[in-house]
Amino acid sequence: MSKPYDPRRGKPQHRKRPPSGPPGKPIRSNAPPAPPDELSLYGLHTVEAALANPNRKKLHLYATANALRRLGDVVQTSGVEVSDISPRELDRYFGKDAVHQGVRLDCAPIPDIALDEFLDDPDTKSARLLVLDQVTDPHNVGAILRSAAAFAVDAIVTTARHSPVESAVLAKAASGALEHVPFIRERNLADAMRKLTERGVRLIGLDSEGDTDLETVTGAPPYGLVLGAEGKGLRQRTREHCTVLARLDMPGAIKSLNVSNAAALALYAARRGEVK
Amino acid sequence: MSKPYDPRRGKPQHRKRPPSGPPGKPIRSNAPPAPPDELSLYGLHTVEAALANPNRKKLHLYATANALRRLGDVVQTSGVEVSDISPRELDRYFGKDAVHQGVRLDCAPIPDIALDEFLDDPDTKSARLLVLDQVTDPHNVGAILRSAAAFAVDAIVTTARHSPVESAVLAKAASGALEHVPFIRERNLADAMRKLTERGVRLIGLDSEGDTDLETVTGAPPYGLVLGAEGKGLRQRTREHCTVLARLDMPGAIKSLNVSNAAALALYAARRGEVK
Repeated sequence: MSKPYDPRRGKPQHRKRPPSGPPGKPIRSNAPPAPPDELSLYGLHTVEAALANPNRKKLHLYATANALRRLGDVVQTSGVEVSDISPRELDRYFGKDAVHQGVRLDCAPIPDIALDEFLDDPDTKSARLLVLDQVTDPHNVGAILRSAAAFAVDAIVTTARHSPVESAVLAKAASGALEHVPFIRERNLADAMRKLTERGVRLIGLDSEGDTDLETVTGAPPYGLVLGAEGKGLRQRTREHCTVLARLDMPGAIKSLNVSNAAALALYAARRGEVK
Repeated sequence: MSKPYDPRRGKPQHRKRPPSGPPGKPIRSNAPPAPPDELSLYGLHTVEAALANPNRKKLHLYATANALRRLGDVVQTSGVEVSDISPRELDRYFGKDAVHQGVRLDCAPIPDIALDEFLDDPDTKSARLLVLDQVTDPHNVGAILRSAAAFAVDAIVTTARHSPVESAVLAKAASGALEHVPFIRERNLADAMRKLTERGVRLIGLDSEGDTDLETVTGAPPYGLVLGAEGKGLRQRTREHCTVLARLDMPGAIKSLNVSNAAALALYAARRGEVK
């Protein structure tokens, strides 16, 4: 059993990896390090959702007695092996900035969906997609995943390079949504967009200079909302492969939003656009 | 003139303050430390907006030659004193995780608005407010400020304690929006809410269990959208002081959004609700 946690007790650690980055080798921990093709998730919501996901390969759960109680039945149902761990060991493993809430789940990343497989699925005819053009910040992508899950997005399409990788920080920011929205990662985003439009998926690029308001152009699914990185916006080739460019009308002094806020608004406005 | 910046050249610093926190005493920098009632902003957008704001007291600008060129005319117009600084000195001052983009502006925080002053202003009759109940994360509050500026919110009402303080991290996340949306900080949020409703401001609490959809209850200004912290939601007393509780309808598996995304959606939906 672990002692009550006092955050002031641990000495400051000289970390080799950035505190917000994915965990690499643990620094002085009794728990074994996760191999490279695995990752360690933290946070109660995140770990609970991962345990409840039958498509997620779980390897080992480390939890404090308190966290284990809070996780409840899902631990046993998942069949994962469990070891006791102290909050200090988790601090050492994840770094002090990670709100681990007493849990570490070693697991495999969720497999991506192949674009061709997705296109051959009959459900594609009514799909809602989110296409992210070089949006990489794990906090933003995590928040986008939550909104995507809330608005029942079927998949997120990104480039293979300059794309968000599943990491502990992204998973925590996604707060369980990573288990609900699969990724399609393509080497060439423009090619992927061309294949999607050939199958009748309308691609609506979000652009402050867009011709029309998003709500008026969305129409019925299948469609994909295409968002670029903050500041940069859509790359020229991405823009050229959109069916239409649309904007979100805002009355205020500043028109530039955080990219995850823009994504949330776009998803909401597009849903409204469907029912017109 | 400063040398080209090589991020690998600086030795890792053992920081006394968290890397994402507001800057305190600089560690080995030639530039003088900012006194406690001042703060140092970084980031080109953020500093540019602060320089352009006549209500912001500017004390000193430190900039690399390149950043100074990118800031342009606003520097001279603002009348601020300027010193040359190297990227390495800025790294040391702000910490390696801060994307300072070659600038540091020492300045005073923007003064808050007093609630009584706001209530006596005739413009209050058509005001749109955002009331934040213990939302403190500077990244989220920064993103919320951007959305608030985009949707022409007149002021953000928060508690004096457990409230966001103007910091370099918040300012950077707000990307200039801090200059557009003033804060009203009140010791007792419930009292402030009572005063607002007495003046005819309808307070609409966002709550997943709310009786009605936000779009259908907003009506004409003046109104205030009331948001609680992620996970916790609105506190009981805050909830009791709302005129009405409303929800945002979402079709997906997860209904819980990042708080800044929820704020963006609420602002958008409320604007739509006005025109009904």
